[in-house]
Amino acid sequence: MPSGPVPTSVDHFLAMPHFAVVASLRPDGSPHSVATWYDWDAGRILLSMDQSRARLRYLRADPRIAVTVIDRGDWYRHITLNAIVEELRLDEGLADIDRLAYRYTDAPYMTRDSPRTSAWARVESWHGWDASGARKVTNAQWGET
Amino acid sequence: MPSGPVPTSVDHFLAMPHFAVVASLRPDGSPHSVATWYDWDAGRILLSMDQSRARLRYLRADPRIAVTVIDRGDWYRHITLNAIVEELRLDEGLADIDRLAYRYTDAPYMTRDSPRTSAWARVESWHGWDASGARKVTNAQWGET
Repeated sequence: MPSGPVPTSVDHFLAMPHFAVVASLRPDGSPHSVATWYDWDAGRILLSMDQSRARLRYLRADPRIAVTVIDRGDWYRHITLNAIVEELRLDEGLADIDRLAYRYTDAPYMTRDSPRTSAWARVESWHGWDASGARKVTNAQWGET
Repeated sequence: MPSGPVPTSVDHFLAMPHFAVVASLRPDGSPHSVATWYDWDAGRILLSMDQSRARLRYLRADPRIAVTVIDRGDWYRHITLNAIVEELRLDEGLADIDRLAYRYTDAPYMTRDSPRTSAWARVESWHGWDASGARKVTNAQWGET
């Protein structure tokens, strides 16, 4: 049973705590990029930002992002998600960053005194490469490949 | 002796064959992102693309990129370079992709029958995070920090 808008194999890949880099857009249209934790839930990506981050302002102005997720065990396996941030909300009680911290470090988030914002982004399309370097999948209709 | 527009410590970091993700811009202004090999030479970034890549067309239309470089040994150390592609040229004899392949795999590039284009990008600014998650450095003037 596919749980999201990607094939089951990709869904399983994204469910693991892999490395990720998120690209967003500055007000002048230039790309902004930074390494990030993420979580994946039925076709949506969860990101978390300290309230002071410029990126938060960028996402409010233009919700288009790209997230490249890289296999922790094999750098040559990676999936990029093109997504739209559809929800930005205060992370009450730091529940979302704790969710991410447990996912990646098996412990609650260390910094408790700084407010954070959570972003939920809906995946619109994706592409991936396998270990051979060949373009493996690109699929606007989310079919199984 | 700093060999480029970044502090010596960053210069040394970038000289290692770390993981990287490059963000560019699609014609509609949305971010495009993909994992990539790179090399670093005195303030410029070398990237290589198969001639068929859409990304090549994107870079011709808008040369602004962001490259997030992630420590192979410590995911929490990363530097992002904001750069402008100032040169796109046919990779004659595949010399540039071989340079990258030797850097990352200690062997020449396997695929010899497909033309490639090299991009050289000039770094305009950068930012980095250390293992604590604190913003470590951001510096438009390239001073030593």
